[in-house]
Amino acid sequence: MRFLHTADWHIGKKLHAYSLQAEQEAAFQQILKLAQQYQVDAVVVAGDIYDRALPNEQAVAAVNRMLQTINLKAKLPLLVISGNHDSAIRLDTGRPWFKATQFYLHTKLAQAFTPIEIKKTQFFLLPYFEPFAAREYFADPKIHTIAQAMPKIVQTMQAQFAPDKQQVLVAHFFAAGSQKSDSETALTVGGLDAVPLTALQKFDYVALGHLHNQTALHEPRIKYSGSPLKFSVSEANQQKGVWLVDTDPFQTQFLPLTPKRDLQELTASFAELTTPAFYNKQDRDAYLAINLTDTKVIPNVMQTLRQIYPHIISLTRKNGRDVAPTQVKKIRRLAPEALLSDFFKETTGQALTTQQEKWATSALKAARKEDK
Amino acid sequence: MRFLHTADWHIGKKLHAYSLQAEQEAAFQQILKLAQQYQVDAVVVAGDIYDRALPNEQAVAAVNRMLQTINLKAKLPLLVISGNHDSAIRLDTGRPWFKATQFYLHTKLAQAFTPIEIKKTQFFLLPYFEPFAAREYFADPKIHTIAQAMPKIVQTMQAQFAPDKQQVLVAHFFAAGSQKSDSETALTVGGLDAVPLTALQKFDYVALGHLHNQTALHEPRIKYSGSPLKFSVSEANQQKGVWLVDTDPFQTQFLPLTPKRDLQELTASFAELTTPAFYNKQDRDAYLAINLTDTKVIPNVMQTLRQIYPHIISLTRKNGRDVAPTQVKKIRRLAPEALLSDFFKETTGQALTTQQEKWATSALKAARKEDK
Repeated sequence: MRFLHTADWHIGKKLHAYSLQAEQEAAFQQILKLAQQYQVDAVVVAGDIYDRALPNEQAVAAVNRMLQTINLKAKLPLLVISGNHDSAIRLDTGRPWFKATQFYLHTKLAQAFTPIEIKKTQFFLLPYFEPFAAREYFADPKIHTIAQAMPKIVQTMQAQFAPDKQQVLVAHFFAAGSQKSDSETALTVGGLDAVPLTALQKFDYVALGHLHNQTALHEPRIKYSGSPLKFSVSEANQQKGVWLVDTDPFQTQFLPLTPKRDLQELTASFAELTTPAFYNKQDRDAYLAINLTDTKVIPNVMQTLRQIYPHIISLTRKNGRDVAPTQVKKIRRLAPEALLSDFFKETTGQALTTQQEKWATSALKAARKEDK
Repeated sequence: MRFLHTADWHIGKKLHAYSLQAEQEAAFQQILKLAQQYQVDAVVVAGDIYDRALPNEQAVAAVNRMLQTINLKAKLPLLVISGNHDSAIRLDTGRPWFKATQFYLHTKLAQAFTPIEIKKTQFFLLPYFEPFAAREYFADPKIHTIAQAMPKIVQTMQAQFAPDKQQVLVAHFFAAGSQKSDSETALTVGGLDAVPLTALQKFDYVALGHLHNQTALHEPRIKYSGSPLKFSVSEANQQKGVWLVDTDPFQTQFLPLTPKRDLQELTASFAELTTPAFYNKQDRDAYLAINLTDTKVIPNVMQTLRQIYPHIISLTRKNGRDVAPTQVKKIRRLAPEALLSDFFKETTGQALTTQQEKWATSALKAARKEDK
């Protein structure tokens, strides 16, 4: 039995103001191609298909198209669980019909205990669940965290284990010892919900979703696939991809994905950044987090850089910014209105319009009123 | 071929502040029972399954349950189109899988031209569409209204008509000559979009959705089913139900539904309304639009009536309310703050709290500012 393990698609997610739709579609096409090229027996998506419980219509259309493409066009069995970003209820739409074409979608805890068998592998699809759901399911008032629920969950699954078969758990939670990055939303109770690895070692493989870095956990048989795309600056140096997993004999291989538009960090001086010899060597079209080494004030900095690098997502100063002591004194004496107007001029190279001045004045007035 | 024709479920709709979930569930159970009792070959739902494009999770769960119950549990073929209240894109989720169990769901204009055949009847399922969709589909820049699109649509359908079969159109629009009531949202272009009946007379039967009154149109073979529930006071005297339709030999019968909680109008004096001999004869639990015959000021009127009639949805004065000429003069002299405070006291029997007074003052201040 051979399958692809992916997760955390977060369809509908934006990177600052940018829609990631084209990049997500391109990553999906690569996943599909890999699945076909490696002749997998199934594709596993371990939760967070959507970025939010209430996805917009465009995201709904994209997910519908993707799931139909894998399962109905490419005729690949599809194993999906809901993650903490998905609305289990919305995602559940159509579920009972899907299994006729080997599309298994689990959105409720109770469904996790009926294994899906493909070739000689039993898949236990455990959707993201809140502790109260486990408390209710096991009628055990002592369950207050996901971690507390897991031993009981695994025990219940073990009762279904066929000795001559392999067992794979598909789940969406924070496994103890994993490293978080910036783009993941914390699961409810901070820290308390880390699932100990001991509970997971009963399986031949655990296909996890939730963390966006495939190296978040260093275990041969318990893995995060990570997201197919970089979703934050902290992921700039991560290699994104999917796991190719064989259950018998056991083997895993990480298959990289190539982003349609990359996300990169760029540390340099303003002079370098604006020199053709420098910028022609850069991936100028990438989503860029620029870290300026300059300390001087640079007029129109963003405007100038955007002409060369159209997708800047952040601009920071590696070494801070020079402010002369006399200037500090001057700044301290300025009224907030004047400070704001100076700052705007310095940053954008343009003075506030009369209308903008009015807005600023009324906002500051309101702020002062709230302070009282 | 025999089918039930229903429409305009508007799952998720509220009646003033009241959730209609229990009433909608009860109506659904009756529809299901009728379908089974009359051994229909299919159930037709002519649009507006949901009340809004973005239904809440409770509504999604309810609709999913209903559609599964009809098609998967009761194993009845199900023919559904999207209405102007539905999000075609959201409703479309799962569609390609549904037809395996004879659940045909059409959400796009292009799908209308592939008839669904059940026994010897061809069903053309035409979802609600915007004029631009028809303009694009027919590549005809002259189409600006639904009415203008219909002759072309019907003509395209006619090319599929099998002479030895019956043809049924399922659609969701305003048919010319129909009577509107209060609870229907107007379709885009006021008036211009009324579909002439001539376009519809090619069919053995036209199962319409959109208008909530089953008597909105008086045609033997072109009918609105109306909504299963009363959604506004203007529908208080309507008999709600579904159509039972036989295509060969052609026959229709209106099957009434009994509301779990009715919506009624009640015209009486305050004295009558509060007399046991009177109110014990009323359906006190109904959603009530009370029309008071009194003209005098009645202290605590709403509070008192609610103790007897817990689900009042409106309170009006049939004959207006007495105001003595001296009082009019007095009122004219009062500042808005004092007027509001007097009105509140008169209506609720309680004085404004200090906090409420503050709110009122600041709201009136803001209103005065906007007036300038």
